[in-house]
Amino acid sequence: MGTEIERKFLVEGTPWAQGSGVRYSQGYLNRDKERVVRVRVAGEEAFLTIKGVSRGASRAEFEYPIPKGDAEQLLKLSDGPVIEKNRYVIPHEGSHWEVDEFLGDNAGLVVAEIELRTEDQPFSRPPWLGREVTHDSRYFNSSLATHPYSKWREPHSGRP
Amino acid sequence: MGTEIERKFLVEGTPWAQGSGVRYSQGYLNRDKERVVRVRVAGEEAFLTIKGVSRGASRAEFEYPIPKGDAEQLLKLSDGPVIEKNRYVIPHEGSHWEVDEFLGDNAGLVVAEIELRTEDQPFSRPPWLGREVTHDSRYFNSSLATHPYSKWREPHSGRP
Repeated sequence: MGTEIERKFLVEGTPWAQGSGVRYSQGYLNRDKERVVRVRVAGEEAFLTIKGVSRGASRAEFEYPIPKGDAEQLLKLSDGPVIEKNRYVIPHEGSHWEVDEFLGDNAGLVVAEIELRTEDQPFSRPPWLGREVTHDSRYFNSSLATHPYSKWREPHSGRP
Repeated sequence: MGTEIERKFLVEGTPWAQGSGVRYSQGYLNRDKERVVRVRVAGEEAFLTIKGVSRGASRAEFEYPIPKGDAEQLLKLSDGPVIEKNRYVIPHEGSHWEVDEFLGDNAGLVVAEIELRTEDQPFSRPPWLGREVTHDSRYFNSSLATHPYSKWREPHSGRP
């Protein structure tokens, strides 16, 4: 078990090197925020992940590697569409940003996440970093599967 | 991944040897029959199990061992009460029966399961074996957590 502290931002432009991404396919065996159960294929690896409810930017998280063949079967059991995206890991002044370029119904959406040790840990902002969306539930992957970016009415507006 | 073929029966009497059981605690991260996600502590072991929808007595099942400490945390995230029971493995003429003695709100209920290779595989019935309840959803563990045996109006009646 670990506690995940992440901050999430929109991305301006395409700050990744060509061909440097890993293809992710992920679906949900439960979307309830009290007990999210996620199946993820990440390149040649696969994982089953359980997340508890968020407290601020912190969240209880349990992750287990599983055979890729199992994950492909489990994705067929998942609730709603499977999310497809390319993930890039982009270093910036000692931090590693995980940048997700969404595909399919979420094409056009690019977000970057940084994992922190504490909620108020300072970090250097890369030039391509846009508005923070950590607490905007529309950008949760569990929400994007059923309410994809292409269907939003005002895709570039955000909650205050 | 495996496919589980099980038949389930009520049990008459207490056919186990004293002290031969293993304590099970289990809860659910999803109860939807299309994607049951179960957390189980079994003695000193623990497992995360996903089951797809039943087709006859067959069901897709994926099971992963996880640390017992993780499972105890995951039980706290589970949806509804945790089921407590003692499990006994009782051999009978070449078969191994898993007999569950339910505790707590399900005290008084004892069921036996046998795992088969095919749905019509013949097997020898032990003298303590009662009525078959394979297809009676009230006896599903995922149902017993929220609709415990002690709350049934006619606990000894069954569906036709």
